[in-house]
Amino acid sequence: MTVLARLQHELGEIVSVESSDLVASRRDRSGWMAPGTPLAVVNATSIEHVQCVLRLASEYRVPVITRGAGTGLAGGACGSDGSIVLSLAGMNRILEIRPEDELAVVEPGVINQHVNDALAEHGLWFAPDPASKAISTVGGNIATNAGGLLCAKYGVTREAVLALTVVLADGTLLHTGHRTVKGVTGYDLTALLTGSEGTLGVIVEATVRVRAIPLGDTVTVAAVFPDVAGAAAASARITAERLRPAVMELIDPVALAIVARFLGPERCAGLPLGTGAFLLAQTDGEGAGLEAERVAAVMRSGGGDVQVSRDRESGEQLLAIRRAMHPALEQHGTVLIEDVSVPRSRMAEMFAVIADISLRTGVSIPVVAHAGDGNLHPNFVIPPDPSGRTDGSVPEHIWAAADEMFRAALRLGGTLTGEHGVGVLKRRWLRDELGDTSFDLQRRLKAVIDPLGILNPDVMFQ
Amino acid sequence: MTVLARLQHELGEIVSVESSDLVASRRDRSGWMAPGTPLAVVNATSIEHVQCVLRLASEYRVPVITRGAGTGLAGGACGSDGSIVLSLAGMNRILEIRPEDELAVVEPGVINQHVNDALAEHGLWFAPDPASKAISTVGGNIATNAGGLLCAKYGVTREAVLALTVVLADGTLLHTGHRTVKGVTGYDLTALLTGSEGTLGVIVEATVRVRAIPLGDTVTVAAVFPDVAGAAAASARITAERLRPAVMELIDPVALAIVARFLGPERCAGLPLGTGAFLLAQTDGEGAGLEAERVAAVMRSGGGDVQVSRDRESGEQLLAIRRAMHPALEQHGTVLIEDVSVPRSRMAEMFAVIADISLRTGVSIPVVAHAGDGNLHPNFVIPPDPSGRTDGSVPEHIWAAADEMFRAALRLGGTLTGEHGVGVLKRRWLRDELGDTSFDLQRRLKAVIDPLGILNPDVMFQ
Repeated sequence: MTVLARLQHELGEIVSVESSDLVASRRDRSGWMAPGTPLAVVNATSIEHVQCVLRLASEYRVPVITRGAGTGLAGGACGSDGSIVLSLAGMNRILEIRPEDELAVVEPGVINQHVNDALAEHGLWFAPDPASKAISTVGGNIATNAGGLLCAKYGVTREAVLALTVVLADGTLLHTGHRTVKGVTGYDLTALLTGSEGTLGVIVEATVRVRAIPLGDTVTVAAVFPDVAGAAAASARITAERLRPAVMELIDPVALAIVARFLGPERCAGLPLGTGAFLLAQTDGEGAGLEAERVAAVMRSGGGDVQVSRDRESGEQLLAIRRAMHPALEQHGTVLIEDVSVPRSRMAEMFAVIADISLRTGVSIPVVAHAGDGNLHPNFVIPPDPSGRTDGSVPEHIWAAADEMFRAALRLGGTLTGEHGVGVLKRRWLRDELGDTSFDLQRRLKAVIDPLGILNPDVMFQ
Repeated sequence: MTVLARLQHELGEIVSVESSDLVASRRDRSGWMAPGTPLAVVNATSIEHVQCVLRLASEYRVPVITRGAGTGLAGGACGSDGSIVLSLAGMNRILEIRPEDELAVVEPGVINQHVNDALAEHGLWFAPDPASKAISTVGGNIATNAGGLLCAKYGVTREAVLALTVVLADGTLLHTGHRTVKGVTGYDLTALLTGSEGTLGVIVEATVRVRAIPLGDTVTVAAVFPDVAGAAAASARITAERLRPAVMELIDPVALAIVARFLGPERCAGLPLGTGAFLLAQTDGEGAGLEAERVAAVMRSGGGDVQVSRDRESGEQLLAIRRAMHPALEQHGTVLIEDVSVPRSRMAEMFAVIADISLRTGVSIPVVAHAGDGNLHPNFVIPPDPSGRTDGSVPEHIWAAADEMFRAALRLGGTLTGEHGVGVLKRRWLRDELGDTSFDLQRRLKAVIDPLGILNPDVMFQ
C-alpha cells in the first residue's frame, strides 16, 4: 500500500487530493509557489489525526509541511513535491480562558483576532499583533515567532507562549513549558520550538500568556514630516526621551504616496499624506494622555505636522493608514515584502542604503517600518510579467537588489529577518548571518529532534 | 603530563590549587557542599582563558564546573571531585552601553547591581532583579534564567537577553542572537542557553536588553492582613482589577514573625509586623499614583492595615522588610530555600498545603512569595546539628517534607522551580515534572551539544 492509500484508509475524508487544494497549499502570501505537486492535504481536526500523519510519514519517510492559514511571507509552509501537507486550520478551538492566571489554551489553527475577540469579554488580550492578525493563526504566529506592531513595549510572540503540546516526527506527544510565568525545570524547549518554522515538531496546542487590557485611554499621535530622515530622527528622539509608545510606525515617502492614492483624500484622516514621511505613535495605560502630549511635542519640534486623536475610533482611522500599506502595494504587482531589522541607532542609515539601492537599480522599494524596534519592511514591487507568468517567482535582478540590502543590514549589526522567518526564500543568506559554528550546530539540533528529516525539510537550511 | 600540569603550564598563576579556594568552590548559597575535591580553580579573565580550559578539559575528558559569584540556591555551580572549576568572577567588565539601542554588552562575571549602577547614569536599568542582585552575576542570572521581584510586569531574565557569546565544550566560540529586539533567523539558541545551568556551554559575553527607567514616581503600598488567606485573596483581586504593580510580595505569618524579630520595632516602618501576613506592592510609571490608590483600596477592602509611601526612600524601607527575609532566617539555622511556582489561582491552595505539611511533620516552613506570578519560596529551616556537622546536607526528613510539597505543586499545575534552577538538589524530581519524552529529548540535546559530557555533568539530569 502507498502512503496515500494508508492515509486515506486511516483518516478517511479529511485527506484531500483535490487539485485545487493541492495547488492552494503550494502558495503563501509571499506570492511564491512551491514547484511540483504534494501528495495530499490532510485537514486535521484532532491531535490523533496529527499523530497518525506523522507516524505514517515516518514509516514511509515522506516530508510533512505543516500549514495554518497560509499567510506566511517567506515560503515557509508551502506544499512541496511529493509531500503531505498537514493543515491545522480546522484545529481552531479555544480550549480554556483563565482570567485569574492570565492564560489561554488554544488549538494552533485559531485566528489571532478570534482569540482576542474571546479574551475581550474578560478584559484581556493576546499581545502579539502581526499586521496580519485578522487572518493569521496563533500556531503560525508561534511557528514564526511573529513580531508586529507592539514588540518594543509588549515583546515578540515568544514572550507570550508559556507551554506547548507538540507532536514529534515519530508521532510521540511532547509537552513543554509551564502554566506559570516562571519555570526553569530543564531546557527551554518552548522557546526552541517557537520560531522553528515547522522543522522540529507540529504544535497542536498552545498555552499562551494573555494580559489585562491596560486601564486608561489609547491615544494616537500621527505626523507628516518633510522627509524620512526627519521622521526617523523624531522616532529616535521619542525613545531617547524615555517615552514608550505601544505602537510606533514609520512610512517612507515612496510608500506614503502609494497609500495616499489607494485611500483617497476622504480616508487620509485630514493628514497631507501625498508627500513626506509618516510617523504614528500610540500610547496606552493610565499615563497615555500625558505621554502622547510629550510624543506630540517631540514630533512638532522635529518639524512634523501633527494630529492627536484621543478616542479609540479616530485612532483606528489613523492606524488604518498603516494597515492599508499591503493592499495598496498589491495593486501595483507582486510584492516581495522584506523584513530586515537593525539596531534602532542605525535605522536612518538603513533607510539611506535602501534609497540608494533603489536609485541605482531602478527598483521601486517603498518602506514601512516598526520604528520602535528598528524593523524595516522594504517592499520590492514586481510589476506584472508581460508574458503572463504567475508562478510568483522573484526575478533575479530583484534578488540581487535584496541581496545588497541583506548584506547592508548585517553590516549594520542587524538581521535578515526580524519577524517573517527564513522559510524557503531566505535560506541562501542564513549561513552568512549565523556563521558556520551556529549553522552547523543548528543542523545537528534539527537532526537529533527530527532524525529522518521529514519535517518541512526545504525550509531554513539548504 | 597531567591535565593540571597542562593547565598550569598554559595558564600560569590564574590556576589555583589553594585548599581554601578548592573548598570555597564546592559550596553555594544553598548550604550544600559537593563531596570530594576539585582539581583546580581557574580564575579566567579572558575568552582565551576559557577556550584553553575547555580544550584541555575535552582532551582529558575532565568535567568543568562554571561558576560566578557562587550565590546559587540549587547546588548548580559547585566544584565536584576531580573537576576543573572555571571561575568567571574576574570577567566583570561592562563592554558597551548603547542608550539609543537600549542594550548593554557585559562580561558574565559582572555583578547585576554594578550593571544597574552604570546604566543609571544614562537613565536606564536592567530589569532582572533576583533578590540577590547586589551579589549575583549577570552570567549566573542568565545561566539560571533568574526571576525575582519584577517578573509579572517586566519578564524573566530570558526576556532581557538579546545575544550571547559562548565557548562550547571543545573550545569553539559560538555567537547567538541579535542586537535587535526582533530577529528570527534560525533556532533561538539564546533562549536555549538561558537557564541551561552551565550544561551546554560557557557564556563569556552577553548582550542584554536594557530599559528606560520609567518616568513618574515609584509608589509603594504595604499592608498587614490577619492571615495569609486574606493577603493572597487581596493579591488575586489586584490582578483581577487589571492593576499591574511592578512588585507584589507576600510574607506569610510564620515568616513575618521571624522578620519582625530580626528587624526590631524601629525598622518595621510603623507597621504591626508581629502577627498576620504582609503584602507589598510597588507601582511605577506615569500612572503610578493612581494605580497605587486603587491597589490600596483593594487591600483595605480585603481587611488590610495599609500604609502608602510616595517617595522612593520610604518605599525602600518597606521593601527592606522583604529583603530582610533571608538574613533573618539564617539566624535560625541552615535554610533550604525552595522555589515552587503555581498558577496564581492556586496560590492560596499551595499556602494551605505547606501549612499542612508543616503541621504534620513539625518542620517550620516560613513562606515568602512573589505573589504577582505565583512563585512561592517555602523555607525549610534546619536547626544547627547538635553533633556539629557542617557539610550542609539536608536531613532526609526535610527532603521528605519537600517531596510532598513538590508533588503538590505539580498536582496544582505548577513547577518544582520557578527561578532557582534544578542544580544538584532537585535532579531527583526532574523526570517527574518533565515526563519521559521531554526528559529523554533534553538529554539527547545535551549529548549533541556536549558530546563528551564534560559540562557541569552532575546537574539537572541524573
